[in-house]
Amino acid sequence: MASDAVGGGDGEAMVTSTEMLFKDKKVPPWRDQLTFRAFGVSLVLSILFTFIVMKLNLTIGVIPSMNVSAGLLGFFFIKTWTRLLDKCGLLRQPFTRQENTVIQTCVVASSGIAFSGGFGNYLFAMSETIAKQSADASYSGNSIKNPHLGWMIGFLFAVSFVGLFSIIPLRKIMIIDYKLMYPSGTATAHLINSFHTPQGALLAKKQVRTLGKFFSFSFLWGFFQWFYTAGDACGFNSFPSLGLQAYQNKFYFDFSATYVGVGMICPYMVNISLLLGAIFSWGLMWPLIETQKGSWYDAKTSDSSMHGLQGYKVFIAIAIILGDGLYNFGKVIFRTFPAIYKQLNHRGATLPVSKSPTADEKSALESYDENVRAQVFMKDQIPIWASVGGYVALAAVSTVAVPHIFHALKWYHILVIYVAAPVLAFCNAYGCGLTDWSLVTTYGKLAIFAIGSWAGAANGGVLAGLAACGVMMNIISTASDLMQDFKTGYMTLASPMSMFISQCMGTAMGCIVSPSVFWLLYNAFPDLGTKTSAYQAPYAVVFRNMAVLGVDGFGSLPKNCLLLCYIFFAAAVIINTVKDFLPAKISKYIPIPMAMAIPFYIGGYFAIDMCVGSLILFVWEKKNKAGATAFGPAVASGLICGDGLWTLPSSVLSLFSVKPPICMKFLSVATNAKVDSFLNT
Amino acid sequence: MASDAVGGGDGEAMVTSTEMLFKDKKVPPWRDQLTFRAFGVSLVLSILFTFIVMKLNLTIGVIPSMNVSAGLLGFFFIKTWTRLLDKCGLLRQPFTRQENTVIQTCVVASSGIAFSGGFGNYLFAMSETIAKQSADASYSGNSIKNPHLGWMIGFLFAVSFVGLFSIIPLRKIMIIDYKLMYPSGTATAHLINSFHTPQGALLAKKQVRTLGKFFSFSFLWGFFQWFYTAGDACGFNSFPSLGLQAYQNKFYFDFSATYVGVGMICPYMVNISLLLGAIFSWGLMWPLIETQKGSWYDAKTSDSSMHGLQGYKVFIAIAIILGDGLYNFGKVIFRTFPAIYKQLNHRGATLPVSKSPTADEKSALESYDENVRAQVFMKDQIPIWASVGGYVALAAVSTVAVPHIFHALKWYHILVIYVAAPVLAFCNAYGCGLTDWSLVTTYGKLAIFAIGSWAGAANGGVLAGLAACGVMMNIISTASDLMQDFKTGYMTLASPMSMFISQCMGTAMGCIVSPSVFWLLYNAFPDLGTKTSAYQAPYAVVFRNMAVLGVDGFGSLPKNCLLLCYIFFAAAVIINTVKDFLPAKISKYIPIPMAMAIPFYIGGYFAIDMCVGSLILFVWEKKNKAGATAFGPAVASGLICGDGLWTLPSSVLSLFSVKPPICMKFLSVATNAKVDSFLNT
Repeated sequence: MASDAVGGGDGEAMVTSTEMLFKDKKVPPWRDQLTFRAFGVSLVLSILFTFIVMKLNLTIGVIPSMNVSAGLLGFFFIKTWTRLLDKCGLLRQPFTRQENTVIQTCVVASSGIAFSGGFGNYLFAMSETIAKQSADASYSGNSIKNPHLGWMIGFLFAVSFVGLFSIIPLRKIMIIDYKLMYPSGTATAHLINSFHTPQGALLAKKQVRTLGKFFSFSFLWGFFQWFYTAGDACGFNSFPSLGLQAYQNKFYFDFSATYVGVGMICPYMVNISLLLGAIFSWGLMWPLIETQKGSWYDAKTSDSSMHGLQGYKVFIAIAIILGDGLYNFGKVIFRTFPAIYKQLNHRGATLPVSKSPTADEKSALESYDENVRAQVFMKDQIPIWASVGGYVALAAVSTVAVPHIFHALKWYHILVIYVAAPVLAFCNAYGCGLTDWSLVTTYGKLAIFAIGSWAGAANGGVLAGLAACGVMMNIISTASDLMQDFKTGYMTLASPMSMFISQCMGTAMGCIVSPSVFWLLYNAFPDLGTKTSAYQAPYAVVFRNMAVLGVDGFGSLPKNCLLLCYIFFAAAVIINTVKDFLPAKISKYIPIPMAMAIPFYIGGYFAIDMCVGSLILFVWEKKNKAGATAFGPAVASGLICGDGLWTLPSSVLSLFSVKPPICMKFLSVATNAKVDSFLNT
Repeated sequence: MASDAVGGGDGEAMVTSTEMLFKDKKVPPWRDQLTFRAFGVSLVLSILFTFIVMKLNLTIGVIPSMNVSAGLLGFFFIKTWTRLLDKCGLLRQPFTRQENTVIQTCVVASSGIAFSGGFGNYLFAMSETIAKQSADASYSGNSIKNPHLGWMIGFLFAVSFVGLFSIIPLRKIMIIDYKLMYPSGTATAHLINSFHTPQGALLAKKQVRTLGKFFSFSFLWGFFQWFYTAGDACGFNSFPSLGLQAYQNKFYFDFSATYVGVGMICPYMVNISLLLGAIFSWGLMWPLIETQKGSWYDAKTSDSSMHGLQGYKVFIAIAIILGDGLYNFGKVIFRTFPAIYKQLNHRGATLPVSKSPTADEKSALESYDENVRAQVFMKDQIPIWASVGGYVALAAVSTVAVPHIFHALKWYHILVIYVAAPVLAFCNAYGCGLTDWSLVTTYGKLAIFAIGSWAGAANGGVLAGLAACGVMMNIISTASDLMQDFKTGYMTLASPMSMFISQCMGTAMGCIVSPSVFWLLYNAFPDLGTKTSAYQAPYAVVFRNMAVLGVDGFGSLPKNCLLLCYIFFAAAVIINTVKDFLPAKISKYIPIPMAMAIPFYIGGYFAIDMCVGSLILFVWEKKNKAGATAFGPAVASGLICGDGLWTLPSSVLSLFSVKPPICMKFLSVATNAKVDSFLNT
């Protein structure tokens, strides 16, 4: 069963003592967790992080997780404030870890909109600037929509809140029953807990010191790496540590402290599955398909074209993710449907605990921490009728409102998206919980293809596809963010209710702050989005091209691609079924299809990082089990958090156009000889 | 006093227990340490290492220390052999650590000739091939001598043995009284001791395991680094870890495990002196002198010309080294002259123990290990009349013989060299003991200038200078090698007598093997020494150019260079005098001029490596004094030995022309942009 692999629980061992330490600290009721000062600080941090995310979005298009930085800076601001008040004798309400979690949640929700708002991809892809650069040179008026502050804010308000309601009823299953790790969320929770640990506990102090040490190391390592990243393919992130050939197939250790830490938190089976997936896809399948170049697909297509190899990568990955996700979704529904039905008849009753399938889990549930946390987590219920009702109501509003913004997108398109979205949101949140990768844009691409081809080129299918992508991405993204935050809340005894409200507040902030920041940049830099600009927005063109391709439908995919998709979809379902029917002793050695699929598209480098993390933990456990159990999570969190915080100064440096001074480049012997002779002349 | 800084003795702490462990093992008499099998294995290894050194000599010109590899491979061969005999019941004489040391000494002596024989520099610089490429385009017959097997062997036999006798009488002072570290020698001794430690000793076992762990790490690290070194200025050795500006001034951490290990063995003051010297010279003095470009020296001179900045670097370094060396030599003579005089009158008496100047040293002398070792070291005396007599006799032979090979070199030139040589040999052996750097070629350059200008251009001064360089280098090099081996012998209870004889045997082997290997390559590759050859012998041209410059005398040095030399010579003497007159409490904080001078010429990178080693040891000692004392030397030796052994396979790879596949290059932002646009076109 998938839950075996996930519920290994080694990463939780440090926590065993955590709640004992906090025993004497009262958990404030959820209303008291939501303070004015928390939202004040959140707003300030929101604006800061939105600038950072927007910048990254418009330059490289890859956004790291901001959870840690948000938690840390939130602590710093409020702590300074309360310490100041305390000294003046004015402090009425002490700073609790729950309040800290509220800030973190709010900031992440808000800055998340800067990404899921699509300013670097789908939304900006609608503009004339991008259309001019796309394959679709003969674009017409009905495939263009230039950015404007008004409709952007309206659109975001219409679509961003729906996702919050989509998978709320499943939170108990994902957090308590499945024990999904959400590595970023777990790390943030460790960090927040360590900040607020009452003094006098020796082990906790030691853990905090360990965390601090690795935090500093990881931060300084990130800082050091920065100096060598002048230009593309420069620096440690492009280090062909396994050779150039392997590097070209995305097999390399990229020296990312974040993913080594994530690997230490994730169960061994997840990391091994990732690696197997990487080897199977990039080591075997893609090279094999490439030999069919010219036969299966046009040899002249560029590497990034959906008509070529890239098409196989993206769609086979989607097929497996959908297969695994749907299977698990079905299993959950099948198991909990009677319970939900019962709850609908007896309002207020809690969701039943589904039978824990392994002895492992049972003993874990008996532990003190788990009990305390589960109790708090289940206390403030969001009734199931409220979440279902909320979803339906908001979806209805959105279905009516969005076609007024994008005329090409019809109400039935949106309706279909909203019917499918909860399933996909579950799939993504599940995968994210396993591996920390949120494949938001992958689902967005699916929407581009599905809706774009449905609308058709003549009816502004390009614009419809991009808008559908936006609707989809906003649901998926907010849903997995919320679940990540629930994990943090679960581990810091923050109420799910305060988490939910904080997320709502953050989303509202984001819907105003993000478009405003983008509008500012759009007006400040008239060349925004062109090849010569400092803000190239590289993904906007990619998304536009996909939409142009999409209007031709799945039929335009390269040969056998769809067949392979069916096969891999079936394989994912079969593997999961086999896992469920075999005894846990054997099934725990069967890899997890969801985890295997992720490197299909992205490549194996992060899987290698994570396996290095696993290896470190494995050796450590062999040598000193007690030490590894007590300090492993602290080391992992330190590594993740330090690297995470470094993104803040690095983005600020980039915002002020401070460029790293050196490029560490890796050249083959032949290229090096050429370069040397070029430089000497 | 210099001896305070040197005799810190932290590195010796592990040793405290070593001889206790060997208590039950009889030390064989020196005749039994010299076995046939030892010399058989030595000959095989000699040939192997000569190939390696010759290759390095003719390609890059920098030769790492081979002590470790020799010790290790010697152990491996004999151990396999004795284990085999033991299984057949035929083993009569067990393999002892003394025998191991004998092999190591013999192999190092033999392969040392491949370097000091000058096949990559002075000797080959005499050839027509090199003369054609030098500044001295109008060379004539009397400045050319093409290589030939006959005269090369003759020359080496005539000059190589003299050095062995030059500083033998000072061995007790350098090894026992001054407690010079000879880091390579110490590391080799630790390695040999650890191989032969009787079983059952827990700490020793742990130390061996630690050594093994760091040995493997260091070896694998060397292996990993190799992959990224395709081409010049590629790889971790050229990592501008402190920025490009600092890199250009040779300030960078070059990731050399060897020098980090050496830094852990050397006393703190040595490492700090090196760093101060690097900062003072490359950070302050050279940039200042460079501002006088065009005024003090011709702006058009190349960076490597002795007429320009390079002249200041080389000659100021030589001045300080001479100042410090002469001061210490004078001090030793002043102290020991009465004793030597006494010994000459009462033959067989041992050299007196000079009064230990600090309490530190006294308590160290009381330790068990020191006593056992000093006892063995002083047992088999080489009488002082023998060493002085040997030196005089061999010098006489050489003085008569060498002018028959090089007609330009007169007997009085050689006589002067032999009069000055013991002092310089002492200076070099002393510096090498402090820092592991043997500045053999520096003294060789001094000879080029001194003798070349004396002979004059008309009388074949170029050839005379180069030949004088050879005479000088052979003495200096063998003397410091021997002292390094005495240190190893001291720590492994090998007799000085067996060390000396082994060194003689090795030298004899080298005098035949080295010219033969060179002659083979010279005939196999007719383009040897030209720009297009795989064997460019880059230093041969450099030495030739220096000789051409040298015939014009010191007057041809750039402006104020000689003045600066006088100032720094005086400063070195004054600092030493001040150190001797101040109480030890204060004087131990005064840097050592000899150590400061070394980076003047070479640059600061190895000083930074060594300071990193110091820092690691310092932090370790702060956290766990006992652990650092017990395992520090094992870690250091492991780092040095692993990296040392890697030179063997790396040289073999290079011998078979297996090139590393990748170049890790470091480019500035501007250069990177140029390269990127070049590669994209």
